[in-house]
Amino acid sequence: MRFGLLGAGRIGQIHGHNVAGMSGISLAAVTDAVPDAAQKLAAETGAAVMPVASIMNDRTIDAVLICTPTDTHADLIEQAMDAGKAVFCEKPVDLSSERIVACLNHISKANKPLMIGFNRRFDPNFAALKHRLDAGQAGNIELVSIISRDPNPPPVEYVQRSGGLFRDMMIHDLDMARFLTGEDMVEVHAVGSSLVNPEIGKAGDVDTAAVMLKTAGGVLVQISNSRRATYGYDQRIEVHGSLGMLRAGNQHESTVEFAGTQGFLADPVQNFFLERYANAYRLELEAFVAAVKGGKQPSPSGMDGLKAQQLADAATHSAQTGQMVRL
Amino acid sequence: MRFGLLGAGRIGQIHGHNVAGMSGISLAAVTDAVPDAAQKLAAETGAAVMPVASIMNDRTIDAVLICTPTDTHADLIEQAMDAGKAVFCEKPVDLSSERIVACLNHISKANKPLMIGFNRRFDPNFAALKHRLDAGQAGNIELVSIISRDPNPPPVEYVQRSGGLFRDMMIHDLDMARFLTGEDMVEVHAVGSSLVNPEIGKAGDVDTAAVMLKTAGGVLVQISNSRRATYGYDQRIEVHGSLGMLRAGNQHESTVEFAGTQGFLADPVQNFFLERYANAYRLELEAFVAAVKGGKQPSPSGMDGLKAQQLADAATHSAQTGQMVRL
Amino acid sequence: MRFGLLGAGRIGQIHGHNVAGMSGISLAAVTDAVPDAAQKLAAETGAAVMPVASIMNDRTIDAVLICTPTDTHADLIEQAMDAGKAVFCEKPVDLSSERIVACLNHISKANKPLMIGFNRRFDPNFAALKHRLDAGQAGNIELVSIISRDPNPPPVEYVQRSGGLFRDMMIHDLDMARFLTGEDMVEVHAVGSSLVNPEIGKAGDVDTAAVMLKTAGGVLVQISNSRRATYGYDQRIEVHGSLGMLRAGNQHESTVEFAGTQGFLADPVQNFFLERYANAYRLELEAFVAAVKGGKQPSPSGMDGLKAQQLADAATHSAQTGQMVRL
Amino acid sequence: MRFGLLGAGRIGQIHGHNVAGMSGISLAAVTDAVPDAAQKLAAETGAAVMPVASIMNDRTIDAVLICTPTDTHADLIEQAMDAGKAVFCEKPVDLSSERIVACLNHISKANKPLMIGFNRRFDPNFAALKHRLDAGQAGNIELVSIISRDPNPPPVEYVQRSGGLFRDMMIHDLDMARFLTGEDMVEVHAVGSSLVNPEIGKAGDVDTAAVMLKTAGGVLVQISNSRRATYGYDQRIEVHGSLGMLRAGNQHESTVEFAGTQGFLADPVQNFFLERYANAYRLELEAFVAAVKGGKQPSPSGMDGLKAQQLADAATHSAQTGQMVRL
Repeated sequence: MRFGLLGAGRIGQIHGHNVAGMSGISLAAVTDAVPDAAQKLAAETGAAVMPVASIMNDRTIDAVLICTPTDTHADLIEQAMDAGKAVFCEKPVDLSSERIVACLNHISKANKPLMIGFNRRFDPNFAALKHRLDAGQAGNIELVSIISRDPNPPPVEYVQRSGGLFRDMMIHDLDMARFLTGEDMVEVHAVGSSLVNPEIGKAGDVDTAAVMLKTAGGVLVQISNSRRATYGYDQRIEVHGSLGMLRAGNQHESTVEFAGTQGFLADPVQNFFLERYANAYRLELEAFVAAVKGGKQPSPSGMDGLKAQQLADAATHSAQTGQMVRL
Repeated sequence: MRFGLLGAGRIGQIHGHNVAGMSGISLAAVTDAVPDAAQKLAAETGAAVMPVASIMNDRTIDAVLICTPTDTHADLIEQAMDAGKAVFCEKPVDLSSERIVACLNHISKANKPLMIGFNRRFDPNFAALKHRLDAGQAGNIELVSIISRDPNPPPVEYVQRSGGLFRDMMIHDLDMARFLTGEDMVEVHAVGSSLVNPEIGKAGDVDTAAVMLKTAGGVLVQISNSRRATYGYDQRIEVHGSLGMLRAGNQHESTVEFAGTQGFLADPVQNFFLERYANAYRLELEAFVAAVKGGKQPSPSGMDGLKAQQLADAATHSAQTGQMVRL
Repeated sequence: MRFGLLGAGRIGQIHGHNVAGMSGISLAAVTDAVPDAAQKLAAETGAAVMPVASIMNDRTIDAVLICTPTDTHADLIEQAMDAGKAVFCEKPVDLSSERIVACLNHISKANKPLMIGFNRRFDPNFAALKHRLDAGQAGNIELVSIISRDPNPPPVEYVQRSGGLFRDMMIHDLDMARFLTGEDMVEVHAVGSSLVNPEIGKAGDVDTAAVMLKTAGGVLVQISNSRRATYGYDQRIEVHGSLGMLRAGNQHESTVEFAGTQGFLADPVQNFFLERYANAYRLELEAFVAAVKGGKQPSPSGMDGLKAQQLADAATHSAQTGQMVRL
Repeated sequence: MRFGLLGAGRIGQIHGHNVAGMSGISLAAVTDAVPDAAQKLAAETGAAVMPVASIMNDRTIDAVLICTPTDTHADLIEQAMDAGKAVFCEKPVDLSSERIVACLNHISKANKPLMIGFNRRFDPNFAALKHRLDAGQAGNIELVSIISRDPNPPPVEYVQRSGGLFRDMMIHDLDMARFLTGEDMVEVHAVGSSLVNPEIGKAGDVDTAAVMLKTAGGVLVQISNSRRATYGYDQRIEVHGSLGMLRAGNQHESTVEFAGTQGFLADPVQNFFLERYANAYRLELEAFVAAVKGGKQPSPSGMDGLKAQQLADAATHSAQTGQMVRL
């Protein structure tokens, strides 16, 4: 199985190296708008540098990894599907849910494997939690709490073209809400504030946000997000069910602890997502490869990408209007 | 300082014994609709059994503790204030905010000390957290998360006359939201489900609930409640600020841990509120006595009781209508 | 059941108040070499101040609590037993094992209840650990580790008449070794250093020590002691058995934790023994009363006091000579 | 820099793959008494299969990794040094301290880099603890406690040729004692029992052991070992100093925790050394390469190997005779 990689930025490099390190798989081609970026990654992985069109036309390339800017994702998915390739696309499919619907319609005939990069589903801790939930350890799910806090806010320029916190950051947690409960959400309440950096507020976005969701079955979900956490990248999940609670948390930078007159000091938690989710990025690609090789549709699917986006739209609307959005 | 105790039920017994155990303070009189209950507590504490009117008329009694059923609280506060006594009243003042307003108006001329029994403010762990917040350890507050889960649901008969989960159970957390942030809430979003016991749903109440609040200053507050927690009485607070997070949690039944083939098993957390909040009940009475002796208005005040009730009303309305309530 | 208390110092006050607070039990008399100390405690507890001889001769007094200086313990035990009283004596019975043997011989005819104040056996956490050990949760015991560290070294004057660290401090841990394993020790290896305060070394004692013991059944026990722990009073037990590990640890001063740029800071552990072992002191007296009332010999017995002292002697000898002592 | 690998067993495979994965370094040759083992590893890493003599004579090979059975280590170190190669040798150099002395003498003229594989020094957690010790966070070291427990006992056949628990297993902890304190040990007390598997006792060895050491400066060290730990591979270090305690512990298999009626259940700790010390194996080779490239003697040195072996000999002798061994 041979891969073509579109986009050799931060996330493209991760995926490129992960593909190059998988046995029986090769990274055949890399492209990037910045030639040096493509060249460097190609050199490190043994891939060729090729323009997008050549990758699409190369019959020996079975699958493409889309790691380009968000506004190109939908077009590239369509081109790749038209060219008969399996596609792994970084989240989100598009900032517009309408465009995602159109894209999913376009590719429905091709019916090739499409997987969206909601990497957190593959974090070993979260995956173990999900596995135990499915095994019934916590009984029937009643309430889910998801905490996701970045160490530092991104530059305001990034914020301005991000689609807003709910679409850019919380979309991961909204996908996890669906993943963990195994249900679709029917109610969305959102609130947000700009407390971390007033420039983010001036740009029309929030940096501190909370969401409540209700599933069709009445399960409640709480999510909180912040663009700041001084103690590391805070990623926690807590699921309450009829038999008890399952939770999964952070890993500290080391297990070293100092006890002195001030008390017991443990390390900050791992910081940042490249470290925390290194295994998740590797494992999601393995799942993609396994699905493609096994002739199965990978998960999370394009429809999962659409539903997370619709929830992010609803949360954005709720936070702006103060009103609950029913789906 | 001599106390009269109205109500010798579960909570009245706690307060009665705490008063009897304070040095320089005495429990002079006890009353209860069930004579045996009054008699038993009187015997244990050295108090006399007296009818309510006699307690009110006894000039040697400086203060009354109101631990009777909720629907008598407002009347008894008014009678006691008219009789010139300081009053400690268990929460809530009344299930109707209008009645609370009338009561506060009635007693405004008497201007005697009135304290409402929001005991959690006096839990040593939560009080230490609040102290550190006030000292600025976490910087400016941005997001507060409060978790409160009872071990087991109450009988449906109790639920039916409780005013509903938001007024009966979450009122404590709503008060904590004001206490921790030092601000009033301006927006209330609530959702609820009946997942623990369908009979509770048939009775028109919920047993699993979540609330989001926003303060005037934009601080976000998340609360979750459940009538069930298999692992003990779950009472946690987490406050995120510009400098970091302060949190306070549960105490396990012991520090013993077993490590075996299944992993590391720690004890359930303390169960139930009589155990968890034993110190809080004692400390709140000490604070009441100190305020009365020092000629100061105690805190939490009657106004705190009103505002918590108004938040509980708002949450009940939001959960029933699906819409945000602006205060 | 009426108690006479000999000694109204720090530990005598604890026991005196605990007796006074037990229902159905009274503290009848108090004595102390310092009249004011006796007077103060008597006033607080409703006891009479009486000289030792009067307490011994008072037939209405059923039991005496010996909390006087160590060098008076054996004499007072003998007097009290001769007077037909049950005796609770603070550890140690005497700094000389020979004197303890003579004392035990002396009182063997009286055959009245004698309990030695090894309070740690009654700490709820350690007692829970022991209970689970006895229930077989950890299987057959293989290795026990006991850590005991005081927050600060005592004055050198205290050290000089203490009998040395092994007899003064580690005796508690040596008793716990026997209590936990349910076996007698047959080998003792000890090492010690003076690292905390050189004056302690000049006084011929150590302030940092470690001991290894082997039971008749081959179970290994490790103990470490220090006269200093900057983070609180460190009292931990870890027992390894064929099925797993049982451990019991410290309680922090609160459950509050701060997470910031330096990491996660939990409170120091409880400091000092009056706080940490408050429940243990109360529970050991309850056990004494229950044994006396039930006509049973209490535990830990005088023989337990002797065996702990012999182990402390052996450890002292081993540390001084560098050689193992076989018992 | 080109490596030759002697021995393609379990540990040889780890080192072989780590070398093959280092940039700028290559695994040139592999040898093993079992041709298939060498062939397989060579195929995986791109190395050639060559006999020992050819590796020694190949001038393009700069360094050898000795991962053969223990009784060949000293000979191979000498051959490799005679051939002018840098040497990384798995612990121990030999089961006989005399043979190690002879080997170190033999190679003293060659004066090529020699590093002994005490991998735990490179565990990121233990290395961070050591770094903070050296930075003075805990002040002057007073007492060190090292716990090392294998999940399961090895086969008795392995035990019989292992040199005994102290030389086979505790040697790592004895090296850590020197590494952490930065001092040589002057007193060794050891005790051992056969409690896990009676066949180990029949073979003349112990499976449960404890050691106490004293350094020249009076620092005390406690070590405990067991061939069994049902909850995973237990590897902990605790260092007490004048300013506080530094400790480093285990990592659980995941961060998932279940809370139910039995309490809070966390996962077992990582099991086994290949998982726990994966990073340590990689980092020690990087340190070796850095030392060789930088023209420095690597650490831990051959002398460290000798001193650990002498401590293991002393512990063995102490456990057998019951007497302390002074070094």
